[in-house]
Amino acid sequence: MTDKRTKIHRPKPENARGFRDIAGNYLHRRLGAIKILSEIYQSYGFEALETPVLEYADSLGKFLPDIDRPAGGVFGFKDDDDQWLAMRYDLTAPLARFFAKNAQFLPRPYKRYQVGSVFRNEKPGPGRFREFTQFDADTVDTANIAADSELCLMLSQGLNALGIETSDVKININNRKLLTAVLEISGLAGDDEHITNQRGIALRAIDKLDRLGENGVRLLLGKGRKDESGDFTDGANLSDAQADLILGFTHAKGLDNHKTLNNLHDLVKDSEIGLCGISELEQMMTILDGVSGNKNFILEPSTVRGLGYYTGPVFEAELTFDVPNDKGQIVQFGSVAGGGRYDELVKRFTGQEVPAVGVSIGLDRLLSALEAKNLIQNNIIKPSVLITVMDKESMVEYVKIANQLRQNGMCVDLYVGDAGMKAQMKYADKRNSTLAVIQGSDERTLGRVIVKDLQFRNRYGDNAPDGIEQQIICNLSGITETVNAMLKRGSI
Amino acid sequence: MTDKRTKIHRPKPENARGFRDIAGNYLHRRLGAIKILSEIYQSYGFEALETPVLEYADSLGKFLPDIDRPAGGVFGFKDDDDQWLAMRYDLTAPLARFFAKNAQFLPRPYKRYQVGSVFRNEKPGPGRFREFTQFDADTVDTANIAADSELCLMLSQGLNALGIETSDVKININNRKLLTAVLEISGLAGDDEHITNQRGIALRAIDKLDRLGENGVRLLLGKGRKDESGDFTDGANLSDAQADLILGFTHAKGLDNHKTLNNLHDLVKDSEIGLCGISELEQMMTILDGVSGNKNFILEPSTVRGLGYYTGPVFEAELTFDVPNDKGQIVQFGSVAGGGRYDELVKRFTGQEVPAVGVSIGLDRLLSALEAKNLIQNNIIKPSVLITVMDKESMVEYVKIANQLRQNGMCVDLYVGDAGMKAQMKYADKRNSTLAVIQGSDERTLGRVIVKDLQFRNRYGDNAPDGIEQQIICNLSGITETVNAMLKRGSI
Repeated sequence: MTDKRTKIHRPKPENARGFRDIAGNYLHRRLGAIKILSEIYQSYGFEALETPVLEYADSLGKFLPDIDRPAGGVFGFKDDDDQWLAMRYDLTAPLARFFAKNAQFLPRPYKRYQVGSVFRNEKPGPGRFREFTQFDADTVDTANIAADSELCLMLSQGLNALGIETSDVKININNRKLLTAVLEISGLAGDDEHITNQRGIALRAIDKLDRLGENGVRLLLGKGRKDESGDFTDGANLSDAQADLILGFTHAKGLDNHKTLNNLHDLVKDSEIGLCGISELEQMMTILDGVSGNKNFILEPSTVRGLGYYTGPVFEAELTFDVPNDKGQIVQFGSVAGGGRYDELVKRFTGQEVPAVGVSIGLDRLLSALEAKNLIQNNIIKPSVLITVMDKESMVEYVKIANQLRQNGMCVDLYVGDAGMKAQMKYADKRNSTLAVIQGSDERTLGRVIVKDLQFRNRYGDNAPDGIEQQIICNLSGITETVNAMLKRGSI
Repeated sequence: MTDKRTKIHRPKPENARGFRDIAGNYLHRRLGAIKILSEIYQSYGFEALETPVLEYADSLGKFLPDIDRPAGGVFGFKDDDDQWLAMRYDLTAPLARFFAKNAQFLPRPYKRYQVGSVFRNEKPGPGRFREFTQFDADTVDTANIAADSELCLMLSQGLNALGIETSDVKININNRKLLTAVLEISGLAGDDEHITNQRGIALRAIDKLDRLGENGVRLLLGKGRKDESGDFTDGANLSDAQADLILGFTHAKGLDNHKTLNNLHDLVKDSEIGLCGISELEQMMTILDGVSGNKNFILEPSTVRGLGYYTGPVFEAELTFDVPNDKGQIVQFGSVAGGGRYDELVKRFTGQEVPAVGVSIGLDRLLSALEAKNLIQNNIIKPSVLITVMDKESMVEYVKIANQLRQNGMCVDLYVGDAGMKAQMKYADKRNSTLAVIQGSDERTLGRVIVKDLQFRNRYGDNAPDGIEQQIICNLSGITETVNAMLKRGSI
């Protein structure tokens, strides 16, 4: 039964389940967006930080948004010294660890931004990956609400810098203290486990107002809700009166921010935490309305942000332009970033209250938005010049041409394969090269090159203006000028 | 025995063993270096790529440099579907997987660069981390040696762009085919397990020539070697005659590249693979010597690069300026990057030979070099202006001042803490702010601000030139000009 032919094992060249590669133009536009946002954040005095991908599981804690499954969601394993390691699932938990470790050396408040991969050990789905990129900014160790306002302004300016018009952005603002007050008034106060659980369900229910509508949320506040697939989600089992109170809160929006504040004031009555929340929102709106001429900072009582750890102001950036959804319906683009104030994360380590506020941009959502609006397409990838190779033995000459053009700031791709001119033109096509430089032995003898416009048809169709040629023969000494002029031809 | 006081568990805010945070000025200089190198690589026609941190363990394979321990070195764990996942240990194995997966869609040759964290499950030590950053460029699917030359040129230009002088850089070049020829001639040819093992030990021994000297390497080629700590490393058990032949190869360097080639020719005699290696080096040197006016591309027969998978030209960038080592001795800085040609990595998946060549920069080594030469210090972090807050109730005014300066391209840090002016000055100190803007109620009434030069003493010591004041009072309308002028004062 033995067979001497050993079969060679060939692994399949696949991504692991739920992971993906990011490449080509999409990646270059992404890097462009990161660059633009980083510059804005730096101009606000935020420093970069990079924490490791792996942390002690213990120090990350369990702050996943989905508090239905507090034990799941994280990639973890045991190190060889028997300690549990976990891959970071967000950038906030590592920041809390970093701050607790280095507080004495850091300027306080500490302002930092971080962009990086985070990992969720969850069931992947279409557009739902187990590694994705967050772009966070946080201000740690200040209770001053000016920090919250600053993040909202910076977020708004960052989106503008990417080319998104102010009229297409709403920054929705609310305060979790108000919701706490309303929950208190409706009888959901305290640390009792049952109540805590009910509160969690209620918060997540309100967060789904957009998607489920008032009736859906009412079901979740009550007995529970069966979704379209037939799956049943347990409800908070609140009474109708309790549900009315809570839903009343989400209706508190008035015709302008001032009216909304008045409505909220009526709702929280003399609740201490409620009045504190009102005062914080007043401070934020004084700055935001006072500084920005535009009116896109909006008090929005239905914004709660599901994350369990928020304790004060919460906010999100919502893009209001229309896009087709998966079903072809026209919908508003929706949220691309969100954040808020959290006071407990550092305390886990030190026991001391360290108030902090942060905002996180979901980079892939943001990129989809930029794609939908056709933004940062052209200014990221420079047009490129392909140096074709007619005679391999003259490679030195081709490299010299390439270097000369690079020294003049151009992106130059030298063909380093082994195939002939036809394959090289196909290569240029795949690379979307703008121009090709060609030199055969005849041209070389005469000290000349041919520069060919590979986008000629895209630029002009069948109607090139008089005097505009698809290819130009020039002296080697004039190649930089010729290439420059051809790169500047009409847009592609 | 029950105790109702539950002790709160407080995790220590520590990095996991062997991991670290990267922050502050160091990180900003690092990001600056990445930006500069990325631009150079893009100007050579290399595209960015990002592959995920996690891959199927199977598709990464086992290509760790330390082939003593082929099973170790990787962080791996089982996914919930029972497949083994591993964190990438370099960027080359994922590239091979990516290329095998996407070959039909990619331009070929495929030129890509990738910068990212890689993970090694090894014992950490001083300066030796379990997560570190590599900056790789590879050209996949070409046997044309022009690709190898291009990487050497690009690497050299990249180092120049970071400010490292050409006279401080040597690119050492060799060809593994020559070593294979010499090993063949000395009787170490073939796939026999014992011979393969001897060959591996011999390669690693030669790679240590710099560190151990000829005698140390001779011991490793023979019976083995006891190091200073008393640890014994097994040798390849070659005869003296075999060792002479191999060590002769490492002595083949002549006074110039031409003489070295002649010496190598004598050594490999009529070995087919040896002559092929000579021809490849000739092609590389024709391009490198022909294109670059400088003479820092050097044929160096003792350069082998330990990595098992190299099959052709290998090269490394060595920085030749002096630095003190750990013991205070003055030594040459040494290698910051290396690479070479590998032909087997993609074949693992597809069965087809896909020749490729790549180079990898160790970013942290490179940063140490830049630090030692005091490079890219100033052009990375912009000088910053701190807007101090004297009256919190006038926050709107301070935010407006900050925005006005930002709109003129400055980095402006608004103080968003709750402390008084004294603490704010300490904050400025920790942030290394360049200027502070101060406005109390008196100034506000008069529409003025005070701009204070926080680097006054650093700039001028006790001898400020006449007319240069530490602080200037100006009208709000003139603040941009005043701040600009003060930022441009003598270097700090």
